[in-house]
Amino acid sequence: MQADDHLSESVIFICLHPCNLNMDEWLITENGYQRSKNLYWESIFALANGYMGMRGTLEESSSYSDIKSCSGTYVAGVFDSYNKQYQAIVNLPNYFNTQICVGGDMLNVNTGKINGYTRSLDMHRGVLTRRFVWTNKRNQTTRFEITRFLSISDPHIAVAHFKIKPLNYSGNMEINNILDANVSNIDFHVSGYQLRDEKYFLIDDTHEKGKIKNGTYITVQTKTTKHKICELFKTRLAVDEKEIKCRNDYKVSHRYISNKSVFRVTEAKEYTFLKTIAVYTTRDNKKDIKRAALSKADESLKKGYLKLLQEHTDRWKERWNISDIKIDGNKRDQQSLRFLIYHLIQMGNKNDPRVNIGSRGLTSEMHYGNCFWDTEIFILSFFIYTHPETAKALLKYRYLTLPAARQKAKKLWFEGAMFPWMSSFPGHEQADNWEYANAGIHIVSDVAYAVMHYYNATGDDNFMLNYGLELLIETSRFWASRVYFNPRKGRYVINNVKGPNEYAGVVNNNSYTNWNARFNLRSCIETVNSIRKRFQPKFKMISKKLSLSPAELRKWKSIAENIYINYDKKSKLFIEDDMFLDKRPVEMKKVKPGKEIATESGITWDTLLRHRVVKQADVILMMYLHNNMFTREQKENAWKYYEKLTLHDSSLSYNTHAIMAAELGYKSKSYDYFQKSARLDLDDVMKNVFLGIHSACLGGTWQTLINGFCGMRLYKDKIEFVPRLPEQWRNVQFKIIYRGNLLNVKIEGSAVKVNIDKKLKNSQNVKVFDKKVCVLK
Amino acid sequence: MQADDHLSESVIFICLHPCNLNMDEWLITENGYQRSKNLYWESIFALANGYMGMRGTLEESSSYSDIKSCSGTYVAGVFDSYNKQYQAIVNLPNYFNTQICVGGDMLNVNTGKINGYTRSLDMHRGVLTRRFVWTNKRNQTTRFEITRFLSISDPHIAVAHFKIKPLNYSGNMEINNILDANVSNIDFHVSGYQLRDEKYFLIDDTHEKGKIKNGTYITVQTKTTKHKICELFKTRLAVDEKEIKCRNDYKVSHRYISNKSVFRVTEAKEYTFLKTIAVYTTRDNKKDIKRAALSKADESLKKGYLKLLQEHTDRWKERWNISDIKIDGNKRDQQSLRFLIYHLIQMGNKNDPRVNIGSRGLTSEMHYGNCFWDTEIFILSFFIYTHPETAKALLKYRYLTLPAARQKAKKLWFEGAMFPWMSSFPGHEQADNWEYANAGIHIVSDVAYAVMHYYNATGDDNFMLNYGLELLIETSRFWASRVYFNPRKGRYVINNVKGPNEYAGVVNNNSYTNWNARFNLRSCIETVNSIRKRFQPKFKMISKKLSLSPAELRKWKSIAENIYINYDKKSKLFIEDDMFLDKRPVEMKKVKPGKEIATESGITWDTLLRHRVVKQADVILMMYLHNNMFTREQKENAWKYYEKLTLHDSSLSYNTHAIMAAELGYKSKSYDYFQKSARLDLDDVMKNVFLGIHSACLGGTWQTLINGFCGMRLYKDKIEFVPRLPEQWRNVQFKIIYRGNLLNVKIEGSAVKVNIDKKLKNSQNVKVFDKKVCVLK
Repeated sequence: MQADDHLSESVIFICLHPCNLNMDEWLITENGYQRSKNLYWESIFALANGYMGMRGTLEESSSYSDIKSCSGTYVAGVFDSYNKQYQAIVNLPNYFNTQICVGGDMLNVNTGKINGYTRSLDMHRGVLTRRFVWTNKRNQTTRFEITRFLSISDPHIAVAHFKIKPLNYSGNMEINNILDANVSNIDFHVSGYQLRDEKYFLIDDTHEKGKIKNGTYITVQTKTTKHKICELFKTRLAVDEKEIKCRNDYKVSHRYISNKSVFRVTEAKEYTFLKTIAVYTTRDNKKDIKRAALSKADESLKKGYLKLLQEHTDRWKERWNISDIKIDGNKRDQQSLRFLIYHLIQMGNKNDPRVNIGSRGLTSEMHYGNCFWDTEIFILSFFIYTHPETAKALLKYRYLTLPAARQKAKKLWFEGAMFPWMSSFPGHEQADNWEYANAGIHIVSDVAYAVMHYYNATGDDNFMLNYGLELLIETSRFWASRVYFNPRKGRYVINNVKGPNEYAGVVNNNSYTNWNARFNLRSCIETVNSIRKRFQPKFKMISKKLSLSPAELRKWKSIAENIYINYDKKSKLFIEDDMFLDKRPVEMKKVKPGKEIATESGITWDTLLRHRVVKQADVILMMYLHNNMFTREQKENAWKYYEKLTLHDSSLSYNTHAIMAAELGYKSKSYDYFQKSARLDLDDVMKNVFLGIHSACLGGTWQTLINGFCGMRLYKDKIEFVPRLPEQWRNVQFKIIYRGNLLNVKIEGSAVKVNIDKKLKNSQNVKVFDKKVCVLK
Repeated sequence: MQADDHLSESVIFICLHPCNLNMDEWLITENGYQRSKNLYWESIFALANGYMGMRGTLEESSSYSDIKSCSGTYVAGVFDSYNKQYQAIVNLPNYFNTQICVGGDMLNVNTGKINGYTRSLDMHRGVLTRRFVWTNKRNQTTRFEITRFLSISDPHIAVAHFKIKPLNYSGNMEINNILDANVSNIDFHVSGYQLRDEKYFLIDDTHEKGKIKNGTYITVQTKTTKHKICELFKTRLAVDEKEIKCRNDYKVSHRYISNKSVFRVTEAKEYTFLKTIAVYTTRDNKKDIKRAALSKADESLKKGYLKLLQEHTDRWKERWNISDIKIDGNKRDQQSLRFLIYHLIQMGNKNDPRVNIGSRGLTSEMHYGNCFWDTEIFILSFFIYTHPETAKALLKYRYLTLPAARQKAKKLWFEGAMFPWMSSFPGHEQADNWEYANAGIHIVSDVAYAVMHYYNATGDDNFMLNYGLELLIETSRFWASRVYFNPRKGRYVINNVKGPNEYAGVVNNNSYTNWNARFNLRSCIETVNSIRKRFQPKFKMISKKLSLSPAELRKWKSIAENIYINYDKKSKLFIEDDMFLDKRPVEMKKVKPGKEIATESGITWDTLLRHRVVKQADVILMMYLHNNMFTREQKENAWKYYEKLTLHDSSLSYNTHAIMAAELGYKSKSYDYFQKSARLDLDDVMKNVFLGIHSACLGGTWQTLINGFCGMRLYKDKIEFVPRLPEQWRNVQFKIIYRGNLLNVKIEGSAVKVNIDKKLKNSQNVKVFDKKVCVLK
């Protein structure tokens, strides 16, 4: 009702997009039911609250056998082994699973007549609403409005709310709420970008289920990790806001329990049906997870729909208040930005450092829900500057996985910590291909980079003392053992690595890797020196715990000074790796004839490896991350050489190119790349949104805006803005948290205005200089 | 009886070996039942006749549930898909499967009392015999002698012959002969060197089975290739050479049929039970395979045991007459040589060019029964010089698989023929790892090398005109498209290859590969020129069929002249590949602490790749194959540099090292390496004989003897011997077929005596020069 005002007004828009996306700034709307796009919409409309996630599967879809659907219900951190070595995030029973029966006919939007169908995601409030009028075979016409959300004020709660109005009949109505543990995961093992028929089952047979008043629950257990997950719901039926009773029919079978509410409806009356869902797992440190769920669902039912919604939207408002970016430009770009911020907020969880953000967040089981370097290099920025608690939790995750990273290093004859290419928890390697698992080692320095990034932006000495320094030391140790002093080069080399350009194969001296390894060593030495001075007793403890010696620091210094960087002095070009220039040149069109990533268009892996192509930003990314260490000429040379060789076969590529293009003043290129990155999911640029939202791309696009167009640069003692807005925009406004200060930034053309909006907890003293630099006092 | 005289006399020997191998020159004997070595003996005692093969599984082993056994029954060329892309040789019903029941007790050598147990392989006659006296729980004592063979005079026939003598009782006896199609293959897919629990089933449910007089049959069908295989047997019981009747009980169940012969035995009488087995498949071009099998089994039964045995052993005698190598040295070496010749003879099949020799012949399903470059470089020599018809069939196999090789080249953007790393039939790539499948390209020139080898040894112009030239041209085309003119080097390079040293990873310019590619191009140009002159009309036809142009030949010449070879002029060392010298040195012991191949002792693949180690002969192999193109100094340098870095983690390595050591005069090293190669299977040097006999090692050991110790070298117009016998041997005698002449070679110290024993079909005129060179007249 009033709570849905915003939605009600915004249903009709100009339809520009092949998927019927409306260009509203706060809404994503599916206009008319799009059966063939079901998987796309399931990803786009995914809801999450950091604790759990749910794809945008239609409530009644378990009645449809003929629609391609990948129903996904996940709780972050609930992984199970799909084979002896590797884990996947577990697909759990879909708690929104509801079958509705009108006068004997099952609601099915593929049969009967459908009118005025819309499904809208309200990004401002994190609410998904479906409205339509359905006429069944008996010509009974009913108006439906189904709203659902996963609460961010209490992450254990999910809510579904049905408004049902029989328009031309009185008769019987049944709402069957199902908890069905006959769920399986998709097997991505053999072929990456397909929904395969093979499935694997991660839930064992020791489940528990039962009836409760106006509801049911089921507790399932994962096969090998033995997590227990309880899903419980309670329902309430009302007409004209007054609760009415209905018959409850239960059905119980193997791994299945349902509760059917049966009642009579009267023509033209509006019925509301509320379902409050609670989810707890044994990871939540509760004695009795069923009891916890029951009391949560009860309490929620008592609060009622409007209060639950209010608490949820209030928290969204708080988040948007700091995170929103306002563009005075065009609605399409504004919508894209809101979309990325919306999904990023959903993915973070400041309360649980045992979880990270998977490559598709909680929107699918692609990559088995594992996290990658995507988090440190692409996603983390957003949280550092808008929600540092979440950024800190993500870095603590790496700290907590140090034991596994140390084990991995040892297994491969190295020292220190070797973080895995793909990581779940407790952090053992989840990539089954050695080329990635054991050669994609830049992840190690990416973690160190992220530690320094967070530290320089927040000045959080506690973090550095308790977690950061140990991460820096253990990663440095890894590099010191991983480099090899090659007497033929008189330099420390790093052989057999896979850099960001995965299509180069396994190579020697990937520039990105070598540069970041050096950064890792240098940052560690610097931080050790500074911490030693400022926190002597604590430093002594750390130093003792880790047996850090002055000799070790000297060794690191010598390695950092003598690490080999493949730079051609004559052409002033950084070379991607030692093998790159010896590869055979090739026309890009031949490698990638369509829009799909090259490996999906028939080319074999080795054919890619033999040719001089770049999968994604590599040298360009290095230059962006270590911006002030390269001259403009070096950047221009790299751009001219590599841009034309780049296939952008990763969602991590367009945004880096957009940022570098912006810096170099290639305005239209920059805006083009931005659009591709910003619309990657909404426009399904890579043809694989059905496998979920690209989390790194969201973060990368955020950086395109803040670091690219708005030219934000972070230094050790200041943050500054050198804007290069696209021609299409008049101004941009946003907020940033820097050293505990909430800064207001407004950029108009090349003019910047920074002011301190608010001092937050643990803020440091800063002053604004020349309106666009904020420096530590 | 008299047919077994040889065996009877040779049962007692000195026992030197942990496996109780007796050092008889013609026998391999298991003395006493060795339960824990069952898998080893199954491989060692495998019988085959080129058409089919059978592991040395105990006849009654289907009654044992507690012994590690890998029963394997194969017909060459009967492959089926174990997944969508790849095929495996199919494990068929074991036709020697026999359960014997004495007075109600099943024969089981693990229970009751066993006396005088021996199992002997008579290599001279290709016959496996088991003798023992067994006392059951009721104290009934029976003497058994079970003999079996797979006929090489008629490869569709297998024979089992039982002699049974009740020593202290009269009573009931049952011999149950089983055809059980509930067979599966081992899944080697994930882990190479283990017998895994996972199995896969390649036989479908459309089998046919039935009773025949004194026997049964079963016809099974492979799941996707739809080959039908009929196995049929008939039996005859006799006492004192007179046939007696017995009751026949049949049992039929799903995929299973058995025929139990039930009869009474009288104390101290000797009973003989003959089982003649016939096998036909739909690959045999018979209208009715069951009928063919029935008539074959009938005919065999009529012939009787002694005649069947005689025909079989006569053919073995013929083969040994040409193939045997006699050493006046020690019995152990003599036995090793006989063992390799025995198994090589079993593996070849001159009648079917659609089959090749798998990495373990027909002795297991390791590598799914596929063939590798092992055939061309290691195995072929033996056949070229002792049974050229078989060598020709093996090369025709490559000719018949040209269409698949052309398809593969096209798929990878190349021209000509790209032979697969692993090949079944019709020759599509069977390796599932791109590093091998698409980078192990030296196989292409290995085929060309083999064509030239066969041609130079036989002078078989018909072969060259009908098959060889097309192979040379299509492989040359492949190389011309595979090389890349690298302007930075001013040379044609071959990037991204895996050379024989698989532990180098995927590298640029592997010397072995580049050298052989050049050889391929040059040999083709030379052969084209020579054939053009000598067979103008036929050449025109070939040239037209393949659209061969003078410009193409000129292009090949230019490539051959400008191909890059990584040779360090200063140190006169051929470098294994462009990356080799940049790798980190390592102690060999650290990489390979035990005898198992390194990858089985815990080291990860990438760790191997990062270190300067050599899996198997690589540069050394190149120098052996192209012997007269390198100076002694170059060979010595290569030896000094590479030998100490070599892990010999392939059965293809010791023999090449033995040959090169012999050539360089390192006598004791040479003999050591020879022993390792010659005893690789008998002494289980690599700890994986349970997975079958290493076919390439057999061929490589043969070359060690002939090309290493006896120093045989083949040139375009002559064959010569420069012997370097081990100190331990006085003389060696053998026969060799050269250009249709059967040569007798006797080497004593450094003295060689060659003479022409016989002119065979299509012989060319040759004359013996200086007693050790045989030159074309």
